[in-house]
Amino acid sequence: MGPPALLPPFYTPPFHSLVRQSPPRHHHHRPACRDPPIRSPAMASAPPLLKDELDIVIPTIRNLDFLEMWRPFFQPYHLIIIQDGDPSKSIRVPEGFDYELYNRNDINRMLGPKASCISFKDSACRCFGYMVSKKKYVYTIDDDCFVAKDPSGKDINALEQHIKNLLSPSTPFFFNTLYDPYRDGADFVRGYPFSLREGVPTVVSHGLWLNIPDYDAPTQLVKPLERNTRYVDAILTIPKGTLFPMCGMNLAFDRELIGPAMYFGLMGDGQPIGRYDDMWAGWCTKVITDHLGLGVKTGLPYIWHSKASNPFVNLKKEYNGIFWQEELIPFFQSVSLPKDATTVQKCYLELAKQVRAKLGKVDSYFNKLADSMVTWIEAWDELNPPKGGVATANGPPKK
Amino acid sequence: MGPPALLPPFYTPPFHSLVRQSPPRHHHHRPACRDPPIRSPAMASAPPLLKDELDIVIPTIRNLDFLEMWRPFFQPYHLIIIQDGDPSKSIRVPEGFDYELYNRNDINRMLGPKASCISFKDSACRCFGYMVSKKKYVYTIDDDCFVAKDPSGKDINALEQHIKNLLSPSTPFFFNTLYDPYRDGADFVRGYPFSLREGVPTVVSHGLWLNIPDYDAPTQLVKPLERNTRYVDAILTIPKGTLFPMCGMNLAFDRELIGPAMYFGLMGDGQPIGRYDDMWAGWCTKVITDHLGLGVKTGLPYIWHSKASNPFVNLKKEYNGIFWQEELIPFFQSVSLPKDATTVQKCYLELAKQVRAKLGKVDSYFNKLADSMVTWIEAWDELNPPKGGVATANGPPKK
Repeated sequence: MGPPALLPPFYTPPFHSLVRQSPPRHHHHRPACRDPPIRSPAMASAPPLLKDELDIVIPTIRNLDFLEMWRPFFQPYHLIIIQDGDPSKSIRVPEGFDYELYNRNDINRMLGPKASCISFKDSACRCFGYMVSKKKYVYTIDDDCFVAKDPSGKDINALEQHIKNLLSPSTPFFFNTLYDPYRDGADFVRGYPFSLREGVPTVVSHGLWLNIPDYDAPTQLVKPLERNTRYVDAILTIPKGTLFPMCGMNLAFDRELIGPAMYFGLMGDGQPIGRYDDMWAGWCTKVITDHLGLGVKTGLPYIWHSKASNPFVNLKKEYNGIFWQEELIPFFQSVSLPKDATTVQKCYLELAKQVRAKLGKVDSYFNKLADSMVTWIEAWDELNPPKGGVATANGPPKK
Repeated sequence: MGPPALLPPFYTPPFHSLVRQSPPRHHHHRPACRDPPIRSPAMASAPPLLKDELDIVIPTIRNLDFLEMWRPFFQPYHLIIIQDGDPSKSIRVPEGFDYELYNRNDINRMLGPKASCISFKDSACRCFGYMVSKKKYVYTIDDDCFVAKDPSGKDINALEQHIKNLLSPSTPFFFNTLYDPYRDGADFVRGYPFSLREGVPTVVSHGLWLNIPDYDAPTQLVKPLERNTRYVDAILTIPKGTLFPMCGMNLAFDRELIGPAMYFGLMGDGQPIGRYDDMWAGWCTKVITDHLGLGVKTGLPYIWHSKASNPFVNLKKEYNGIFWQEELIPFFQSVSLPKDATTVQKCYLELAKQVRAKLGKVDSYFNKLADSMVTWIEAWDELNPPKGGVATANGPPKK
């Protein structure tokens, strides 16, 4: 990993062209939508940010009608849809979107035995989309999330805000009391060390949710009517050394700089836990960004989270996690990565080793998870060989 | 220090009565104002929070006309005014406020040789007010700060919000993405460990500023017209292990639990540095709260900061600090306090020792500062003897 650039380089991995030549069978390429024939002068001068550098990853089990509301913001981008559950079911995608869709059969075919690291019947399956994307950036969103409005009543372009967050630095080493110092109208306050004002590359942008807050089952049960109506006009860096609960509902990241850490674990079908997929990814990601000197931002943008999931079902998924978490947090708080772990992959494999060594005794599930963490990195490296490398077997379908 | 209580105990130190019997000569006690004869039913059911448990400390060199705007919020409370500069000058305080006022002569008389630890011709002198207060809580505000309005146009009762912040716990061990989980309409999000949801006692509430942001001289020079217009509706805990730039303009704290750490250092007259008084206090306070398991909040409330100080004058005060700070931050980031430092005083004296050992080589100023830190604690303990203790010489004026 060279010095991370803040502006997206127009880097195309060699493997990229191979994917374009061999799209999965559900791939729909609609150049007309990506390059609309009629452009207003305003659009010509301000094309969608990172149009060719970002994929939107959506895990789903249903028709994607929710995209209609996102059309003005998402249509210029390429979508990667991960169809969870029954692969024989057909998922309808509204007209005009450029997308590729993978179901369980595709995942099994592309990864072979390594497909075991991708969860089934759990939105954790979305991380397969991170792996097959060939773009520098990924935005992932749940299909029950809609466009929120800011306090002035204007529709929030969540993706645009995420991109702004990712393209401006983070400040993990010292807290700025006026929040993100790189926003218009803000700066570093008196007493902020000048040597730290350059910041570090932002690799994660964690967005929030109006309406249904992201509560655990016990809190859902206790506060069934609570709605989040507070629009907090802030973005801030999660300080170095501080863990946070990363939610996968409205999340963007730099997959080139942190992608291999974004493994959503083993959840759902056949596993003793659910709803900790994004949390797991968040804890792993945070200790790795801290180690590598990269930044994580949280706050804006908001999306509108339309409906609460069933708290009884959630409790069943969560209850092991609620116990285990009490051991996981001290583990992640005290993880130390060696100096020679200079790439995300090396950090992640080291983390897998420590998970096995220290969490295996909490439950044998963590031995299985540690195995999967290794498998995930192997699969990632196969689908994303180093520049100049060659794709090996079990990659995407050959011609 | 016993187990810190979240609700204010109605504790009166034995020394309290002595001060009441021997007020400094400027003391005006106006019981009529503290217990208004006419109370609406609403007021009767909701008296001002902590009316008898909080002092407002104001450093000033001018007539306190700014209090007129604060009258509805401050009048029920007792004020401690620290008059900086020429002690022969008379400071006018609007009618109806209950206050005591100390000028340099009072400070010298009360502290004797120990008065050397209190800065002169710098708002750092305000910390003398923290020392002479006998209340559990202190709020301090600058005399160029006015009542701000929230986005709905309503006057913000800054003091009430500070008190709410201080009376609800902090969460320094894990970040909550919906900010303060104890506010109405908010809670801990999914993935927040249940064992950490009780929080820890909040001992500092750091409020912010609309209009003129608290910038250093270089930023003021570069952005003379920048105004802070962004109202961020959030309060959050500064995580453990993270330093922040604490501004003394709009600040509340629990003097019983953290007061002795709130020393604003040696600034102004005869010193090679200014405008780092609150920063110094903030760094010392933060490492001590982290060590003792106490919490620091920042965010709401806002005050309206009316006018920018002269950036050329500020640059002269700040330039040493701008250099030195680059050594101070790594120092504070790596400070480790011993396990037997179980009181704020013990922590602070240990910190003074480390300042001398490690910062003395940066500049001889830090040896002088380390001496003053020790003197400050001695003076604090004289004016605030342990429960059941006896006031010694050099205390407040004897009868």
